[in-house]
Amino acid sequence: MDQTQVVQDSSGIIAIYGVEQASQYGYLALHAIQHRGQDGVGLAVSDGKNVKIQKGLGLVNENMSGPILEQMTGYIAVGQVRMATDGDSALENVQPTVVRAHQGSFAIATTGMITDAVSLREELEDDGLIFQGTGDGELIAHLIQWTDGKFVDKIRQACKMGTGACNFVIATKDHLYVYRDRYGVHSISMGKLKDGYVFSSETSSFTILQAEYIRDVKPGELIVLDENGVRSIQLDDTKKQATCAMEYVYFARPDSIINGVNVHQVRKLCGYYLAKQEDVDADFVIGTPDSASSAAASFARNLGKPYEIGLIKNRYIGSTFIHPTQEQREQGMRVRLNAISSVVRGKKILLVDDSVVYGLTARRVSQLLHEAGAKEVHLRIASPIIKYPCFYGYEKTEQKRLAGFNYTEEEMRQYFNVDTLRFMSLEDFKKCIPETSCLACFNGVYPSQLADYERKVEE
Amino acid sequence: MDQTQVVQDSSGIIAIYGVEQASQYGYLALHAIQHRGQDGVGLAVSDGKNVKIQKGLGLVNENMSGPILEQMTGYIAVGQVRMATDGDSALENVQPTVVRAHQGSFAIATTGMITDAVSLREELEDDGLIFQGTGDGELIAHLIQWTDGKFVDKIRQACKMGTGACNFVIATKDHLYVYRDRYGVHSISMGKLKDGYVFSSETSSFTILQAEYIRDVKPGELIVLDENGVRSIQLDDTKKQATCAMEYVYFARPDSIINGVNVHQVRKLCGYYLAKQEDVDADFVIGTPDSASSAAASFARNLGKPYEIGLIKNRYIGSTFIHPTQEQREQGMRVRLNAISSVVRGKKILLVDDSVVYGLTARRVSQLLHEAGAKEVHLRIASPIIKYPCFYGYEKTEQKRLAGFNYTEEEMRQYFNVDTLRFMSLEDFKKCIPETSCLACFNGVYPSQLADYERKVEE
Amino acid sequence: MDQTQVVQDSSGIIAIYGVEQASQYGYLALHAIQHRGQDGVGLAVSDGKNVKIQKGLGLVNENMSGPILEQMTGYIAVGQVRMATDGDSALENVQPTVVRAHQGSFAIATTGMITDAVSLREELEDDGLIFQGTGDGELIAHLIQWTDGKFVDKIRQACKMGTGACNFVIATKDHLYVYRDRYGVHSISMGKLKDGYVFSSETSSFTILQAEYIRDVKPGELIVLDENGVRSIQLDDTKKQATCAMEYVYFARPDSIINGVNVHQVRKLCGYYLAKQEDVDADFVIGTPDSASSAAASFARNLGKPYEIGLIKNRYIGSTFIHPTQEQREQGMRVRLNAISSVVRGKKILLVDDSVVYGLTARRVSQLLHEAGAKEVHLRIASPIIKYPCFYGYEKTEQKRLAGFNYTEEEMRQYFNVDTLRFMSLEDFKKCIPETSCLACFNGVYPSQLADYERKVEE
Amino acid sequence: MDQTQVVQDSSGIIAIYGVEQASQYGYLALHAIQHRGQDGVGLAVSDGKNVKIQKGLGLVNENMSGPILEQMTGYIAVGQVRMATDGDSALENVQPTVVRAHQGSFAIATTGMITDAVSLREELEDDGLIFQGTGDGELIAHLIQWTDGKFVDKIRQACKMGTGACNFVIATKDHLYVYRDRYGVHSISMGKLKDGYVFSSETSSFTILQAEYIRDVKPGELIVLDENGVRSIQLDDTKKQATCAMEYVYFARPDSIINGVNVHQVRKLCGYYLAKQEDVDADFVIGTPDSASSAAASFARNLGKPYEIGLIKNRYIGSTFIHPTQEQREQGMRVRLNAISSVVRGKKILLVDDSVVYGLTARRVSQLLHEAGAKEVHLRIASPIIKYPCFYGYEKTEQKRLAGFNYTEEEMRQYFNVDTLRFMSLEDFKKCIPETSCLACFNGVYPSQLADYERKVEE
Repeated sequence: MDQTQVVQDSSGIIAIYGVEQASQYGYLALHAIQHRGQDGVGLAVSDGKNVKIQKGLGLVNENMSGPILEQMTGYIAVGQVRMATDGDSALENVQPTVVRAHQGSFAIATTGMITDAVSLREELEDDGLIFQGTGDGELIAHLIQWTDGKFVDKIRQACKMGTGACNFVIATKDHLYVYRDRYGVHSISMGKLKDGYVFSSETSSFTILQAEYIRDVKPGELIVLDENGVRSIQLDDTKKQATCAMEYVYFARPDSIINGVNVHQVRKLCGYYLAKQEDVDADFVIGTPDSASSAAASFARNLGKPYEIGLIKNRYIGSTFIHPTQEQREQGMRVRLNAISSVVRGKKILLVDDSVVYGLTARRVSQLLHEAGAKEVHLRIASPIIKYPCFYGYEKTEQKRLAGFNYTEEEMRQYFNVDTLRFMSLEDFKKCIPETSCLACFNGVYPSQLADYERKVEE
Repeated sequence: MDQTQVVQDSSGIIAIYGVEQASQYGYLALHAIQHRGQDGVGLAVSDGKNVKIQKGLGLVNENMSGPILEQMTGYIAVGQVRMATDGDSALENVQPTVVRAHQGSFAIATTGMITDAVSLREELEDDGLIFQGTGDGELIAHLIQWTDGKFVDKIRQACKMGTGACNFVIATKDHLYVYRDRYGVHSISMGKLKDGYVFSSETSSFTILQAEYIRDVKPGELIVLDENGVRSIQLDDTKKQATCAMEYVYFARPDSIINGVNVHQVRKLCGYYLAKQEDVDADFVIGTPDSASSAAASFARNLGKPYEIGLIKNRYIGSTFIHPTQEQREQGMRVRLNAISSVVRGKKILLVDDSVVYGLTARRVSQLLHEAGAKEVHLRIASPIIKYPCFYGYEKTEQKRLAGFNYTEEEMRQYFNVDTLRFMSLEDFKKCIPETSCLACFNGVYPSQLADYERKVEE
Repeated sequence: MDQTQVVQDSSGIIAIYGVEQASQYGYLALHAIQHRGQDGVGLAVSDGKNVKIQKGLGLVNENMSGPILEQMTGYIAVGQVRMATDGDSALENVQPTVVRAHQGSFAIATTGMITDAVSLREELEDDGLIFQGTGDGELIAHLIQWTDGKFVDKIRQACKMGTGACNFVIATKDHLYVYRDRYGVHSISMGKLKDGYVFSSETSSFTILQAEYIRDVKPGELIVLDENGVRSIQLDDTKKQATCAMEYVYFARPDSIINGVNVHQVRKLCGYYLAKQEDVDADFVIGTPDSASSAAASFARNLGKPYEIGLIKNRYIGSTFIHPTQEQREQGMRVRLNAISSVVRGKKILLVDDSVVYGLTARRVSQLLHEAGAKEVHLRIASPIIKYPCFYGYEKTEQKRLAGFNYTEEEMRQYFNVDTLRFMSLEDFKKCIPETSCLACFNGVYPSQLADYERKVEE
Repeated sequence: MDQTQVVQDSSGIIAIYGVEQASQYGYLALHAIQHRGQDGVGLAVSDGKNVKIQKGLGLVNENMSGPILEQMTGYIAVGQVRMATDGDSALENVQPTVVRAHQGSFAIATTGMITDAVSLREELEDDGLIFQGTGDGELIAHLIQWTDGKFVDKIRQACKMGTGACNFVIATKDHLYVYRDRYGVHSISMGKLKDGYVFSSETSSFTILQAEYIRDVKPGELIVLDENGVRSIQLDDTKKQATCAMEYVYFARPDSIINGVNVHQVRKLCGYYLAKQEDVDADFVIGTPDSASSAAASFARNLGKPYEIGLIKNRYIGSTFIHPTQEQREQGMRVRLNAISSVVRGKKILLVDDSVVYGLTARRVSQLLHEAGAKEVHLRIASPIIKYPCFYGYEKTEQKRLAGFNYTEEEMRQYFNVDTLRFMSLEDFKKCIPETSCLACFNGVYPSQLADYERKVEE
């Protein structure tokens, strides 16, 4: 699946506690989850007295220079990388959101989505509160400020008011709070960093910092870090954990550990089960780079077929790439991906992609292979058919545009212009992932209440 | 008075209604009041449906490009140029502040200051509201959203809750609201622009747009513009008008009309009265560029003395100017201002400056003239002694740092290292300006309640 | 005369020898002559071993950051600020030009113009040499490399081959060479800077560095600085000195000393002689900012008329200023300059400008004053009529476009739409400036051979 | 082989003839060979009258915007992407070099190296020519301008004067010249692009433009394109062709065709021959991303071992990436490359890299794998030992720093800290590549005279 074709609203968060130069570790931790969001980045630090913030549109590298990080002294940091949905690329929506208040300032960064956010917002707006952006960070900030009691109690109440699946990290002047949604849809892990701690949406942040993985934050758990050490508070009743299965399929880096299981290993298992069903005798297997590589290599091995590298990705596409003419714009895909004619010409190919969302990538890769002379293209998808929209951070997967909702498999095969098409069965897929996984986009069983989105799902 | 030595929190606002490409007219209108604030700029436009915003740190030119303005379609615009006080140069404080709400979004830009802002904020924060910055725009936005009724009523109530002196412009999707504070401390004028209207803190915006000056907005007046035309609502009881006298002395451009009176004309009159008191027989008169030029030229003429150009200003100092070495940093003034030796060497000079705030400029200009060989320097100030702080938008004029508060005239003379020093008397100054002027910084008589600042004033 | 209306190819050069951090002093020295060229800047330094270069389009500030200057270690520096002519704003033409050669590298920066450059280039090109830009720095570099002997001899021969009027500074790895053209058309002065020396096109560079003015480099003199000290070599036979008179009229900063005479003093004298001829009884005098201020103030004083400030300049126009609409583009002048209605309305005005080149500024200022309500505008020019083009660095003053060449005085009066028009007579002007001044643009008497431009001058 | 660890001076050139908007096609063609050089880019176009140039430091995307390309009208284009060697990242060395001459301007871009460049330069400098940079483009420009006759004859003579291996493209106002060095060390191919032609160092440029591959330019061939069509001139006597074998090993994109042979196919063959020699029974095979993937996958397949993805590359490393602390700087590798612990822990690994230059990458990858828990690491190199420096465009491969020159295989094994180490034998490698390949870096047999570098090679 080619990331640039998908407009999901992904993001990732990190937090650091208890190390000097927290901003600099935060910077690297964000860099290691850059693949979760390239449209905006923010980092806030606390030094026991004040909360400072730096944010901007674009990549981590583009917004954090050495001098800026140096000025951001402090031992607590929270940050976010953000992938924008259409039309909301505004700076207002880049987190952390900082609340300035006489009771104490704080910075909050979130990942995931509150499914009753629209109603909650309207309610709060009716009560006279103002929103300057459209993000959930601002909403939770409101809920916290709005409620009474100690800060922990305020967080508790805020979490009760919102449903859906939203993780957050909050830095006050001298505390760090890390919360994972009660269903555990989104991952957040805890690591030991020197004398302090690091938290991140993906364990790839730990590797870059040579931090030691401790454990995942538990669903519904709030971890509080201050001078007195680390406290764990189970904020919500235990729910059935439902961690996003698409992390394994596409979102996470292969070297990350999600829900205790390595992503690459899951992808390999998917390749294994996919191979068990195979009946086409092709010349070789190729995978759509980069996210389908693990599954494709495993598929090939289990099939006893050669694994070929038939598609080449251009590494130098930046966000500023221009397509001078209309004709060239239409060739967009060609700028990013090339098929190697000498490899594919005249061949029967088993093409593996990780998933099908709107189907644009599958259609174009098939076209590239055919133009390069492929004799047959047999598309295999290393995950089940996505039929339902996601409301936990990927709102833009509009159900109406989902290929798997709109079309039968045969219709998809024709649309993609491939000789055969096979998805992994949901049964097989379940064998590859932890039992505690969310399969909502495949089977429509959502772990939380859909609240504002209830009516948006069709069978 | 050299602007760069002063850290007052000045700013200016503009509004456009009823012309296509309102963003482009707003851009030029802001440019014409750029001297009121160079640290940040924002512009919001409405097209009848949505409110769009563009803002950034730095100059108008640096933040508004042609393509950006083109995308900001709409017939209503509100904007601000901002001069930051130390340590709050954050983007969060650049206005307009945009409120996104299901009842309707709006953008607000303010100039001036609410003197009970701190108490109001704390009260609202205690009630559970969040503030993301420290500006009055966000406070008024809160007050408006917080209150009930029609939008006009909400504005009315918000205005009642805050005291001090704060003008604002608000754009909703299809209305423009323009309010001037009840004491009229800050100016805001109304002009005819094609089939629509333009409002600005200074009439220099009208000149650049070839708009026709109609009148000043009245103290306490709210002007509402929509499809049905222009309505005037007198929101507050009539107060004694008290328009800032320092506008004439220093802030405004000479070609602007404040309170019905041309700024340059006032400065000339100051020069006239100053001359009447003169008893030193100097070789010639020079003025500190640029704001003292009008007064100095008039002073010279009335004195029958030559008006000389003895100080030259470097026009190419940008905000990025670097002082490579410590030694050079200490020469900062020399980079900006040069004395012409051949003019001043061996001469008795009457030096005119417009005002003395902290006294840094007077001290340095005196030093420059002495280094260039001046025999005598007699400093004349074309306004009275500033003894009291301002709480209407210039908070940073800390009373403790005011030369006129700390020192006697003789002490100032010694500190400035000049042969004689004379300020304009308050009596003479009053003859130069409209009766309806605020003289608080000279005489400590504040038009409004000082509220949170009550205890900050010493005699 | 409004600088932005003129497209002459002005420039300025500086050189530093014998101080550590020469790049940082060079930076400030260039900054102090920024008014001589805003389109490009370059600085080269030598540390006894290597020659390093930094250059770019735009202002000094925009191209030289602290870290860059720090890396440019060395005790010799040469630099240039450049004003581009139409269509040659290429980076290739920004100097210094650096020659990399096994015999030793060197960097050269020039100001002025070689009038046989075109023939010389063609000759060299025919002999097989390549030119990468169109500047005289590259030409002289060629001539030096092309000739034989010691470096000083090579410079001597190069100077013999070119005619016209071109100053240059050359830094080798351990020498600095400073040459002034044999006619002394362009000024270059020498100052003492700590234990070393500074050279600059204008003495304003000395003021900023607190360097002590020593003397002007003499026409035809080559100054060589190395470990052994300072040597002066008179390269050319003594010619009749002819230093550009327009430096006094317009180009130089008022605080600079050109040819031993302070610029501001000359302008005052011009005002005096202009006043002697005056017969119009106006209400007051105003000057076109900024370059006509000195003359206008002096004119007013000698006339016994008030000196008024009736035109205000906007200080915040950068090179990036945009004119969103066509209509606004046509108002370009209005963005830069405003007339104060309350001052000029109904008045008889004596307007002083420093010079008339193409006449665009005079025409527009007259229009501004009329639009602001002036009753009569009497234009006085504080220099004689410019009838002849300049070939010493201002090539773009095409004779065909010169108002003084195309029109009679009466025609100009009508074109400018003023009530009366008077230029200073050449006789009076001569009384204001040193005898050793070039008056070619007024009387067509060129000090040097015109060479390639011989046929371009019409009577 | 991790590209960032190597400091070779690679580059690539393209040319377009006979299509409108040649600049826009040139832009895309350059983009497709971006991997050959990321430090500078230049593009020159001709429209039958003038030659325009745009160049800058950094990536294609960063220097060519839509508006710039639009202004560069013309039907001929030549361009280069450049990888700088240490200390010469200056803009002066970015090509094309443009020569401005009265006989006609031209732009030249080169790839490869002239081995007698130093002597030639010195000779020309002694004859009085100046060089502003250190690139071969400027040298050839000199040689062309320096010689007599028609342009084609001048090129012919220039080519005779220089030896080594340097391709170039030259655009005059209405001609395009494309030359490939007489030994064919560097590749340059010709394609049909609409009604015109495209030339590029790699055929990946054709794919992006949907141009049709015609043929390779022949060693010693000069192709001339003008109004009259395409002419081929064999400039040099036929030499034994010797096309760089490292193109197949590392430089080229897998989808490119070099010397008629697809790069990916060669890499697969290398994997096959490498497998034939294997005697270690490892758990699986992994390749160093990205350039070793093809060989590693083929190696695994032929060995009947699983191909694993055990190393993950971070895609978001830009040239501006900062390493905040010293400690983090030392972790540089970790930022770019991660090992997947769950894959490698406790495993016996066959690690495949494409080549060993200085050995830094091999050493670090080995360290990463060991830190991630690998039990055994057996390193296999899919090419022979590099013992000799390259003088055809990779000067920086200093022989003294070559691991294969300094160490025996056993010493390398220890230095890399791997259990076993095996390089491909030269005999096997020869079976994988065309006979007409240059093997100089493996066997010290250089196709051309080494000229200035003769004494730099040791056995």
